Amino acid sequence: MDPISFARGVPAPECIPVEELADCAREVIERDGATVLSYGPAGGYWPLREWIGERHGVDPGRVLVTNGSLQGMVFLADRFAGKRVIVESPTYDRPLKILAGRGVDVTAVAMDDEGLDPDALAHALQSGEKPAFVYTIPTFQNPSGRTLTPDRRRRLVELAHEHDLLVLEDDPYGLVRFEGEPPPTLFELDGGNSVIYSSSFSKTIAPGVRVGYFVLPGPLEQELEALAVSTYITPVLLGQATVFEFLRRGNLEPNLERVRSLLGTRRDAMLEALELELPFARWSHPEGGYFIWLELPAHTDAGALLERAGEAGVTFVKGADFGGASNTARLAFSFVSPDEIREGVRRLAALVAPPVPA
Amino acid sequence: MDPISFARGVPAPECIPVEELADCAREVIERDGATVLSYGPAGGYWPLREWIGERHGVDPGRVLVTNGSLQGMVFLADRFAGKRVIVESPTYDRPLKILAGRGVDVTAVAMDDEGLDPDALAHALQSGEKPAFVYTIPTFQNPSGRTLTPDRRRRLVELAHEHDLLVLEDDPYGLVRFEGEPPPTLFELDGGNSVIYSSSFSKTIAPGVRVGYFVLPGPLEQELEALAVSTYITPVLLGQATVFEFLRRGNLEPNLERVRSLLGTRRDAMLEALELELPFARWSHPEGGYFIWLELPAHTDAGALLERAGEAGVTFVKGADFGGASNTARLAFSFVSPDEIREGVRRLAALVAPPVPA
Repeated sequence: MDPISFARGVPAPECIPVEELADCAREVIERDGATVLSYGPAGGYWPLREWIGERHGVDPGRVLVTNGSLQGMVFLADRFAGKRVIVESPTYDRPLKILAGRGVDVTAVAMDDEGLDPDALAHALQSGEKPAFVYTIPTFQNPSGRTLTPDRRRRLVELAHEHDLLVLEDDPYGLVRFEGEPPPTLFELDGGNSVIYSSSFSKTIAPGVRVGYFVLPGPLEQELEALAVSTYITPVLLGQATVFEFLRRGNLEPNLERVRSLLGTRRDAMLEALELELPFARWSHPEGGYFIWLELPAHTDAGALLERAGEAGVTFVKGADFGGASNTARLAFSFVSPDEIREGVRRLAALVAPPVPA
Repeated sequence: MDPISFARGVPAPECIPVEELADCAREVIERDGATVLSYGPAGGYWPLREWIGERHGVDPGRVLVTNGSLQGMVFLADRFAGKRVIVESPTYDRPLKILAGRGVDVTAVAMDDEGLDPDALAHALQSGEKPAFVYTIPTFQNPSGRTLTPDRRRRLVELAHEHDLLVLEDDPYGLVRFEGEPPPTLFELDGGNSVIYSSSFSKTIAPGVRVGYFVLPGPLEQELEALAVSTYITPVLLGQATVFEFLRRGNLEPNLERVRSLLGTRRDAMLEALELELPFARWSHPEGGYFIWLELPAHTDAGALLERAGEAGVTFVKGADFGGASNTARLAFSFVSPDEIREGVRRLAALVAPPVPA
């Protein structure tokens, strides 16, 4: 029996525009080889910084392009080592590990179906050291798939202004929207002084190009760029220039349409399968992204379930790995086919006991 | 007047095999796009790890391929944060900064024309904490251009065995040899248990591919690979696969011949110009690499000279930046043309006062 992975939060291979990227890579080397094959600016390939700057309405000097956006998080954590950072709970596990490794005091604030709870955040701000920043993934969150509502977005930005807070808006999934109107980003609501915006081309073009970026206040961009120089001298300009060529050719929107269609079908398959197989559980209903958050009956231990599920040929990540409750699980629908999704949910459901009747 | 840079330790643009790399990048994406454009192993592109493993006679699992070799130094410094590290003096400034940033206690040990002084190292080992490792660039050292003699190499490896020491042999320039027989590497003399070997393809193919590597004891490779996962998930496989394709096609040796010829001519031009223009100074006579170490008359302040030199249209890096004496300077001959080298040395010499007669 082939194992079915709801654990891998990565795009299905058919999402990646291989042929087009091959041609982009060849062309940028032939056209601009002396630049992209040499040492260059630590902040990234300038034409790409300009493109990103224009998209977000900022000076390109405020854009730091890194070898994947996690690398930017490492620089930020290095910059604020030993300080306090507020995160939403559950949240993406890799930043938690990076922050912990730099002696950061992490305060986790509750979220619900509407995203980070602003009242809980306000409460956390009343006690303890002023945080260096608040880390949030407001759209199609990893791991929960939840999206912060427009009202709460406004409230969060107000809180940032009231408390002179820095907010890090991590938004890798925002453009992978299958339906519905996108809410304004925190960055747009703020005007770009209190909010750092981070994203990447991993979900919109290809993860292997390792091109992530941060839009920062100017002085902070310069501090992080100095850390970049001391880490790798120059990021991989070849990947960045390849991405820029892809964008320059106008390929982003058509590619997004293709990716949205491929992944939307998978999201639909997973929602339908859950409805059919696990009617007594709860789950998030994301309008995009990669993930669904599954809340199993209260007595279910997702860790124990995961062991049995592995034997039954289906895997996921238990919610506890992201700071979630013991009965929760992150299901990624991005990597597997709709048929595999239906079969995987069936295998999973066969292992879950319904709640005890009252 | 165009400024002439002896400061830039980077290859001249004509050293970079642009056309061939363009074709390699296109081919690896077309052939292996699903792999090189996706997330993958944090330790690097497997075929390249195999190639490097074979070259050094080790299991590919001991090879960590990073986004440039400095990134590997960052991982090593993170692993040994707060410990003691012995370096040679002068030495490459970036690692010094990285180590200092991790609270490493750095002991600098003297070198002379024959490289690191083993007696000075033995002395340093007698006092203080046992070092986490000894950092050396034994061949065509940055900044001095000096090469550790075969006798001293053997003595250094003996010391490592006697004291159960780890030695980091940083060897990015070894293959860029214009003349003479290469001495054995420390790694070869040791057998690969006490010596970590690090190198990169920046000087042999192109710096912009950002492909460096470390050959490590197995357990340490796994520890550093875990740090790599927590930093960038996957390195830039596109650059690594492009390098592998370049190697697979048998292009390395012909390219090295070309690079050696281009840079050897520059080294010759600089040695001749120094002989002609600065007969009262001393300098190293490297058989390869990028750098010449200039020792000016004892009363000369290279920092003050650098300011005047900038105005006169020639730049270098003052030796003090590498821990060298105040009358020393690093001259890179790698970036500029032979004509520029002759003119640059002329401009420099016009600013240096001969020693006061006795």
